[in-house]
Amino acid sequence: MRIGILGYGTVGSGLVDLIDNNKGKREIEICSILIRDIEKYKGKKHFEKITTNIDDIFEQDIDILVELIGGLNPSLDYIKRALNNKIHVVTANKDLLAEYGDELINIANDNEVSIKFEASVAGGIPVLKPLIESLEGNNVDSINAILNGTTNFILSKMYDENLSYNEALKQAQDLGFAEANPDADVLGYDAARKLSILSTLAYDNRVYWKDVYLEGITDIDEKDIEYAKKLNCKIKLIGQSKYRNEKVSAFVRPVLVGNESILSKVDNEFNAVILNGDSVGELSFIGKGAGKLATGSAVYSDIIDILDNRLSCVDSFTRDIIKVNQVIDSKCSALLRFTDYKKDEILSIINECINKYDILNESDELAILVDADSEYEINNSICVIKDKGYCDQINKLLKIG
Amino acid sequence: MRIGILGYGTVGSGLVDLIDNNKGKREIEICSILIRDIEKYKGKKHFEKITTNIDDIFEQDIDILVELIGGLNPSLDYIKRALNNKIHVVTANKDLLAEYGDELINIANDNEVSIKFEASVAGGIPVLKPLIESLEGNNVDSINAILNGTTNFILSKMYDENLSYNEALKQAQDLGFAEANPDADVLGYDAARKLSILSTLAYDNRVYWKDVYLEGITDIDEKDIEYAKKLNCKIKLIGQSKYRNEKVSAFVRPVLVGNESILSKVDNEFNAVILNGDSVGELSFIGKGAGKLATGSAVYSDIIDILDNRLSCVDSFTRDIIKVNQVIDSKCSALLRFTDYKKDEILSIINECINKYDILNESDELAILVDADSEYEINNSICVIKDKGYCDQINKLLKIG
Repeated sequence: MRIGILGYGTVGSGLVDLIDNNKGKREIEICSILIRDIEKYKGKKHFEKITTNIDDIFEQDIDILVELIGGLNPSLDYIKRALNNKIHVVTANKDLLAEYGDELINIANDNEVSIKFEASVAGGIPVLKPLIESLEGNNVDSINAILNGTTNFILSKMYDENLSYNEALKQAQDLGFAEANPDADVLGYDAARKLSILSTLAYDNRVYWKDVYLEGITDIDEKDIEYAKKLNCKIKLIGQSKYRNEKVSAFVRPVLVGNESILSKVDNEFNAVILNGDSVGELSFIGKGAGKLATGSAVYSDIIDILDNRLSCVDSFTRDIIKVNQVIDSKCSALLRFTDYKKDEILSIINECINKYDILNESDELAILVDADSEYEINNSICVIKDKGYCDQINKLLKIG
Repeated sequence: MRIGILGYGTVGSGLVDLIDNNKGKREIEICSILIRDIEKYKGKKHFEKITTNIDDIFEQDIDILVELIGGLNPSLDYIKRALNNKIHVVTANKDLLAEYGDELINIANDNEVSIKFEASVAGGIPVLKPLIESLEGNNVDSINAILNGTTNFILSKMYDENLSYNEALKQAQDLGFAEANPDADVLGYDAARKLSILSTLAYDNRVYWKDVYLEGITDIDEKDIEYAKKLNCKIKLIGQSKYRNEKVSAFVRPVLVGNESILSKVDNEFNAVILNGDSVGELSFIGKGAGKLATGSAVYSDIIDILDNRLSCVDSFTRDIIKVNQVIDSKCSALLRFTDYKKDEILSIINECINKYDILNESDELAILVDADSEYEINNSICVIKDKGYCDQINKLLKIG
């Protein structure tokens, strides 16, 4: 099997190591590696195979193009070119799948080749393959997941070591867990893209990532962490989607997660995906969401599947985009924090709209935990309180489990 | 795809429901179902296809034989007959795989058909497929698992509701989680068989189930549960194996598991498998270990794999049997309980052989938690204490995590 690799960074190097380590067991020949700056790779193994010219890759008569450069451009063009030339594609590119999954799967189908993307969601955890192949007899109706290692690392540090958000972010950057520009991670875009890929496959309807309700972790502060500890919870950036009555709801947002739940045990750079199938019940997959060899292992397994001719259908991406509800329309709890507040006025409004509340703090700010029939009630209360000017600022943090 | 099914009990009925529910999506034709007692199935769907004669099954020109009767005989003969007739086999039978896996895989290979057995380990959790196919680029070096739902249910009830072992067993039997004769579950045989299957696939060496160190849960009493709570632990029947320097160690035994670990969150009929791969790191799979539709879902996925021609290699079973070390030769902790004891004499012996100990109780019995360089030291101390007659009885319970 002849392969061309686009990108020779962290994941690319991990993949090359795995291919080299398994030489003799599997015949995978690295024909060419595309990079941008030759200078950076001097002395690195397979140097003789690197090129800055994409045409060199396609001249090699490859069977598989492995795309590991990320982003939308020029990855999209390269992948389309491969598929149109009847070359299989393996990619770790969630941005591309979330945005152009429909188009890419269609081109792959038209050309009778496959595009595989296990590494695009939850790094090293084999979760797309079990979802697509092992759970075919199931209707999956919910996903609860921690899909971004960077934010999970930051939130773990804030919780375990009482760091501020900025201190934890800095540590994540120093350790290589966060990019210099961390926006895609900390604002939740990365997790939303992964959740949309999982949801599309799970519900056999295309869930478009921009329709997922999105809230990042940049507003989480030390006080949130304090309340979390008081409530026997951790704070996690949760991607959740549900399929009910042919409708999907989906969000990515920081959530208070009870210490009794499995998700609360998933810390640092680890990811978790919990699926609920009507036959199999609740299934949890936990492992490293990123890393050279972990993600490399997922890419490698896709190559092996093509080598062994183990193909599966991912036509869900070609279905119509389904409407996504962004507000929780079932019972839910939330922590509400009010600064510069008028207590009696606020509580009287809360009392009107919301089933039950507990006051956690009323000294420097008012913090209450509310139980409501749906998020609409909570949002209504907040609206009224804001309109009447009963406080300066309101923060809302959902609680699950 | 024409299939014959052996057995129409819990899992068989689950499978039939899944096939019927997915009619239209997949063309799977149930040709014949083997049962023992026709009377029992009157009024049940597909009654017209049931037979008590195995020859009726083989006369149907089937593509797949699905074996769901369990046990060694006559399953072994039926499966061999199928493979020798170039009929694929799907089975949930861990007893058979653990005992005759080598022979069956060889026959399957000789006849160029496959034998698939996802449902034989951890019920509905897709774990064999990820292990075989997704982790191929990894050397897996350890497995930590809860592999038996019956014992996990009993231990959960003892812990959560302060039931005695016998009360919890009775409840498990009443709810259908335990057989009338629960020996295979409560004595650990079932978990040892599953651990041997996982270990064989993980280490690419045949691990024979009878070589696994085995201890059941029948001696666990209310006091153990009390100590567990005191130590912030739960008690779980853990299957653990490790591969180091071309040697395997493996046990199935009740273990104190720290509340911070993921395994401590796996309760009741749920199972968990935690694998450590050198590329991917620690990977956890958690889900229902048994049940009509959960196990049916795993069997169904094997059928779909054959239908889609997604085949994989399970030659590990045909390797030589590897020697299994039954004693832990690295640092370990254990709870030791002594009845009718001479405290000073016991502690002086403990002091000699063991790094560190804490006394948990010395009123009605002596209970100490010890940290040692290996289990050998602990066993040595126990031997000396027994030989000298310093107590009437000693119970040892390992602690991990």
